[in-house]
Amino acid sequence: MPRVLDDSLILLSVRPTGSGFSVEALYAEAMESPIQRHLDDLLQDVSRITDGRPYSVHPPGRDPDPDAFGICLATVDGHVYTAGAAADTEFSIHSISKPFSYALALADHGLDAVDEKVDLEPSGDPFNEISLSPDSGRPANAMINAGALAVVAMLKGGGGKSAPRRIVDFYSRLAGRRLSVDQSVYDVEIRNSDRNHALAYLLSSFGIIDDDPTRALKNYLRQCSMQVTCRDLAVMAATLSTGGTNPVTGEDVIDIESVERVLSVMMTSGMYDDAGSWASSVGMPAKSGVGGGTLAVLPGQAGLAVYSPPLDRHGSSVRGVETCRRLSRDMEMHFVRAARSGGSAVRRGVSITELPSRIRRTEEEASVLEQFDDACRIIAVTGDLHFAATESLVRAVSGLDAHVTIVVLDMRQVFEVSDLAVRMLEDLRRRLLADRRRLVVIEGGGLLEGTPLDGEDGVPIFSGRGSAVEYCEDLLLVEHGDAVAERTRVPVLESPAISPLDTAQRSRLVTYMEPRAHEDGDIIRRVGQRFGGVHFIVSGRVNTVGTDPSGSRVRLNTLSAGMTFGELSLGSEDRQEVTEKADGPVELMVLTPEALERLEKDDPPLAVGLWRALTRDAYMLVDRYLRETAVRLRY
Amino acid sequence: MPRVLDDSLILLSVRPTGSGFSVEALYAEAMESPIQRHLDDLLQDVSRITDGRPYSVHPPGRDPDPDAFGICLATVDGHVYTAGAAADTEFSIHSISKPFSYALALADHGLDAVDEKVDLEPSGDPFNEISLSPDSGRPANAMINAGALAVVAMLKGGGGKSAPRRIVDFYSRLAGRRLSVDQSVYDVEIRNSDRNHALAYLLSSFGIIDDDPTRALKNYLRQCSMQVTCRDLAVMAATLSTGGTNPVTGEDVIDIESVERVLSVMMTSGMYDDAGSWASSVGMPAKSGVGGGTLAVLPGQAGLAVYSPPLDRHGSSVRGVETCRRLSRDMEMHFVRAARSGGSAVRRGVSITELPSRIRRTEEEASVLEQFDDACRIIAVTGDLHFAATESLVRAVSGLDAHVTIVVLDMRQVFEVSDLAVRMLEDLRRRLLADRRRLVVIEGGGLLEGTPLDGEDGVPIFSGRGSAVEYCEDLLLVEHGDAVAERTRVPVLESPAISPLDTAQRSRLVTYMEPRAHEDGDIIRRVGQRFGGVHFIVSGRVNTVGTDPSGSRVRLNTLSAGMTFGELSLGSEDRQEVTEKADGPVELMVLTPEALERLEKDDPPLAVGLWRALTRDAYMLVDRYLRETAVRLRY
Repeated sequence: MPRVLDDSLILLSVRPTGSGFSVEALYAEAMESPIQRHLDDLLQDVSRITDGRPYSVHPPGRDPDPDAFGICLATVDGHVYTAGAAADTEFSIHSISKPFSYALALADHGLDAVDEKVDLEPSGDPFNEISLSPDSGRPANAMINAGALAVVAMLKGGGGKSAPRRIVDFYSRLAGRRLSVDQSVYDVEIRNSDRNHALAYLLSSFGIIDDDPTRALKNYLRQCSMQVTCRDLAVMAATLSTGGTNPVTGEDVIDIESVERVLSVMMTSGMYDDAGSWASSVGMPAKSGVGGGTLAVLPGQAGLAVYSPPLDRHGSSVRGVETCRRLSRDMEMHFVRAARSGGSAVRRGVSITELPSRIRRTEEEASVLEQFDDACRIIAVTGDLHFAATESLVRAVSGLDAHVTIVVLDMRQVFEVSDLAVRMLEDLRRRLLADRRRLVVIEGGGLLEGTPLDGEDGVPIFSGRGSAVEYCEDLLLVEHGDAVAERTRVPVLESPAISPLDTAQRSRLVTYMEPRAHEDGDIIRRVGQRFGGVHFIVSGRVNTVGTDPSGSRVRLNTLSAGMTFGELSLGSEDRQEVTEKADGPVELMVLTPEALERLEKDDPPLAVGLWRALTRDAYMLVDRYLRETAVRLRY
Repeated sequence: MPRVLDDSLILLSVRPTGSGFSVEALYAEAMESPIQRHLDDLLQDVSRITDGRPYSVHPPGRDPDPDAFGICLATVDGHVYTAGAAADTEFSIHSISKPFSYALALADHGLDAVDEKVDLEPSGDPFNEISLSPDSGRPANAMINAGALAVVAMLKGGGGKSAPRRIVDFYSRLAGRRLSVDQSVYDVEIRNSDRNHALAYLLSSFGIIDDDPTRALKNYLRQCSMQVTCRDLAVMAATLSTGGTNPVTGEDVIDIESVERVLSVMMTSGMYDDAGSWASSVGMPAKSGVGGGTLAVLPGQAGLAVYSPPLDRHGSSVRGVETCRRLSRDMEMHFVRAARSGGSAVRRGVSITELPSRIRRTEEEASVLEQFDDACRIIAVTGDLHFAATESLVRAVSGLDAHVTIVVLDMRQVFEVSDLAVRMLEDLRRRLLADRRRLVVIEGGGLLEGTPLDGEDGVPIFSGRGSAVEYCEDLLLVEHGDAVAERTRVPVLESPAISPLDTAQRSRLVTYMEPRAHEDGDIIRRVGQRFGGVHFIVSGRVNTVGTDPSGSRVRLNTLSAGMTFGELSLGSEDRQEVTEKADGPVELMVLTPEALERLEKDDPPLAVGLWRALTRDAYMLVDRYLRETAVRLRY
């Protein structure tokens, strides 16, 4: 029995034979992703490079394997690609810890307090050089050893946890699994830390470290001895790329201000004295460690990590650097190339008669809506509302003619709303309101939850277009439709469906009907029931509820006085395909199947007239759907 | 008479009075954009800063106005916001020329040749320091004077134009208007160029300048004396942000490789010794000039320029720097913050029976399509196909079960397709084909033109969903529908529309019909005609053509043998709302209005049966549209 993979599919080919059936099981795997294959090919290609030598400081008998190689790519939706046998091998994080402890210090103390201790300038120095400002002793940046020591010195214990414990906890949340420090690595590191000792005391002499310098040194070396895998680093990188949310666990680990700062410093100072060439040829904020790890971040899009121990003269992994260069080029991961144009977020606006609600309006109402058609515009917005998209949205709304009094933003295709967008929309709402104009939003994903737009003074938010347009139509009818005050009651003799019949015919027809009454919430007709006659609504509202392909119940439309239902089942093998539910008390007149049969026998000419009228009514609906669908095709 | 602004609207309020009508003209301006207001407020705010002193070298009597202030923001779709009275004041470009001449040199010689002369590393030196590699004499980067001189020395004449002329032409294309050099500015610059003279000779001594060093110096100072406005610089910046296309003129001015390189160097070295703090607090590649200009680029989204002469100690405009800082923060224009999450480009796939074509299939065909429903998936993609979006698209397609043999990518909401996406889609196409599976694309904007996907071995590309799905349905029917070989001929007695009638009734009905034949392209029924009877298609195909709200003609559906048309006009006041056109030769049987009248008189029970059958048929259509629209609501 072949192994059945997770993504596989069993195809059973059943063929009739002389003696019954022959069953062939075909095991077809889902197709390999081109991204996966690219990573596998790249790994094989880059593994031909055998330059460089691994870091020499390690516990006895723990020499790193120079051939170990792994590449992991984590996406912002939490998918992790891995290539190479060493993707899950643990190694010491070393300098790749620097940006993360920097993030923790920024969260603990705020940007300004940390800036006082550590500058933001590229040093151009190799990582172990002493690069302090001659007057203040301030290290050039947090990515060199001096800066990292100053940062770690700022990390104190808290909440019943020691500083080293807090660091381990923080890194674990970034990686999405429990990490730990390897004591034997720490032991050899502390025995080989003369330069870092010197740096710590020098920083202390300048008052940059205001605590015991050996405590800072020890905590720094403990953090450097944290064991991580390539997969861990990819997830940590992806957590930076999302702006601070671990895409696998969903936990918010770092605030966006700190992420912005950390990635900015990594961009200019992450790769030691190669910073400029790195920014040009790779274009991703990155950090390498002598343990063989390399981490790179494509903001908003992906986190990348490589593990390969042999190092170049800067102390960066030779294969790690090459892998980043190649991926940046082949996968267009450079920050300039990967920047997406944002000006096209706004689709053309349509009016509500082009996309009417699913309410079947009376003819008078429909005529008012047609007359004030251009008073309401629906603007569809797609993508993420960051700067450029927000700008084009705001421009589109601001540029609308003043006679547009209701602006509907269809934001169902928006995935992310920046604070900027919320502020700008709030500004638009207020200024439209000052002109007695309104903003209405269609959005179902809770993107605006907790923002001022969602509050008491917020905007009406609808999850579907139908209900939003219905709301707008009602607004327009209230404002402009005094002549057509809602007809709450339509005697069956005035039902538009039978208007082609003459008065005498209609009067005769009514004698075949039976009156019925329903309470709010009553199911009048249920899915699956046989044809139960033609129902004329005399007063009240009836909701038509169906199911969409995913099985969710959706309200298809709302019927009101003067309209009919029930005849639709004639189109689906005489079975009711939708449920009709009373929305408030409802009065009906019903032509039952039995009454119809009698009518067809007693008075065939009237029956012909009735059916002809109902056909006309049905075709009015078809016509309307056709027109609506024609709009959608180009919407 | 009030001035009528471009964006204004004239509202005429007409009221009946005793003596006729009173006409009030209301001049309502379109609402001011919140972005515009933000820029105006910011300008006012920042203009309170009066620190700094303007550059002292200028022609006699041409002292710059320290209060002059302008801010311009150009979007990637070519809209330019301006704030401040000095937005259109000309001034000297000075060092802001450096990235652009660098781009020209990269285009002329390629990245490697330019790299040999100029390095990519941040110098940490002020702009006029001598910052050459001690051994090679190579300047640290192209943003300091030494690097800029080396770059200009590489720019030669060509195509009948001198080097200075080529530079002016190139800058003019970037700005979208004819720029020129101010000779009087050049004259004072050349008299104050001792340091630059020294630098040019030093570069010559190292062989970095291999030509006459004074020629390079003169060309450099000519370029620095180019006169630009704040608006020009914003458009030049936006040209970098689009990846090299001037968003106002639409001209492709720089290739993406050069743009990537220029912006990378600007990111690490654009703002002299403030590079790190700039990257952190502004996060946009930028360049300033002593003329008072500051230029910043948000890749993919916008170009920003500020003009204000007073300079800080680094030689950058005080207000320019502050404006960039404030805009980055307030408008979230930092490269990290503005990076958009890309993992959500793929919408859930739907099958073709959820979104059927507009062809009315026979019942047998419909049953085959239902049976092989899951053999075809439609995947909708939105946004720009850069790295993350491409990855998620490729992952979605690769992860489809192997029984999905036709994959339709609906790319109508895609705005940009990267080379990466083209390569990955091409890879998918090839590998699907190897499994005898197919890729089909819906895309109307020509995004794939000229790519291998559009070639002879490419994928079928349809501009609309209807035609793509029709194509897929046909593929499925050819593959699986041997039992239902297309019924090219359906005798009217077997027409599904009248199937509820018994055989005797149908035979009687046919005696009322008249046969008709049409040639390919014949208009059978035209918009606006009165109800012309019920048309039964015996053989051939008929296209239903309507108009969408923009007035374009759209094919609404295609009818084939066994189907009916013409009765739809009963739903629109007896007027034909669509045109019916023969697609190849067509045979019909028609129940004319006169025949119907006779039938209703002669044989009322049969007329009842007919109308009842037609009503059922109409409701089958309504049912189908309702179901289709329920899908679209969530699509």
